[in-house]
Amino acid sequence: MPHIALNSGEPGIRGLLRYRPETARPLSELTEVLLRGPGTLARGERELIAAYVSALNDCRYCSSSHAACAAAQMPGGMALVEQVRADPASAPVSAKLKALLTIASAVAQNGHAVTAEHIAGARAACATDVEIHDTVLIAAAFCMFNRYVDGLATIAPEDPALYAAGARRLVKQGYMAPSATPGHQG
Amino acid sequence: MPHIALNSGEPGIRGLLRYRPETARPLSELTEVLLRGPGTLARGERELIAAYVSALNDCRYCSSSHAACAAAQMPGGMALVEQVRADPASAPVSAKLKALLTIASAVAQNGHAVTAEHIAGARAACATDVEIHDTVLIAAAFCMFNRYVDGLATIAPEDPALYAAGARRLVKQGYMAPSATPGHQG
Repeated sequence: MPHIALNSGEPGIRGLLRYRPETARPLSELTEVLLRGPGTLARGERELIAAYVSALNDCRYCSSSHAACAAAQMPGGMALVEQVRADPASAPVSAKLKALLTIASAVAQNGHAVTAEHIAGARAACATDVEIHDTVLIAAAFCMFNRYVDGLATIAPEDPALYAAGARRLVKQGYMAPSATPGHQG
Repeated sequence: MPHIALNSGEPGIRGLLRYRPETARPLSELTEVLLRGPGTLARGERELIAAYVSALNDCRYCSSSHAACAAAQMPGGMALVEQVRADPASAPVSAKLKALLTIASAVAQNGHAVTAEHIAGARAACATDVEIHDTVLIAAAFCMFNRYVDGLATIAPEDPALYAAGARRLVKQGYMAPSATPGHQG
């Protein structure tokens, strides 16, 4: 049961966005820009970084939700996402994405955990400065979303079909869909 | 030296906001709503929560910046801020603010670290649900900002006078000042 009395029965971040529209707007816009805005990282890759960090932070709602969004937008589907969450180093993704996932993992610990070697590794795998920037900010943002969602003890359904349905809607409508049907899945 | 080539010599989050205006907009709006928007927590109290979490995360830029903003807006000034950062339990602040700082400290660890007892403690000290919500989100947001600022190894000046000057501008102009003079101090 959530720690505070929300104004809906919606799970995870969706209940929080509905509860506090003043903060929902910039949070949704940030998610839309980071995960779906113009950029050289594929949308599926960005969702995968979000899902990976959320798993490191043990946030079931965000991890399940963004894993479903990544699976819906990557050729390898959920099998690939599971491999990455279990062990990015051995998963069949590009060297660049592996290097970016290493940076994301460091960010999840603490900003100071990101080293010059991590950055050099990403550059050696042809990551651009903007890709490194966006990876750090996606990882940092999910350190926020995960704490927001779990710090208020929101509901996290177990049924994977619910997350898959949410992902279908998000892939189509994005994170800034009208508040009548909150599209953000945190 | 920052891990990526920024397009200005500005320190901390200011350099990052200038580098990536697409994400700067929602980040600045989020900060403005959380730290200065309508609410029953005083602006100085909200800045104090931001400074406290940033100190827990060992982020010199954000901690110094928001400590200066808190000091500029609280009767006890920097002496009070230093007492809170050293030991909130013995600092001369309200029982409600102490309970909210306890929640913020838990959020900085992990969302799951916030317990029903923490929430009950805040309620016993007359915190409202919105105040609890906003405390959790402020703490979570600074877990993001701190990781963003340090994960990209931005510059953090040492001179307290620089942070005090920034705080005077922020108190006057807010976090959404025009990008020609970025107002956000992270």
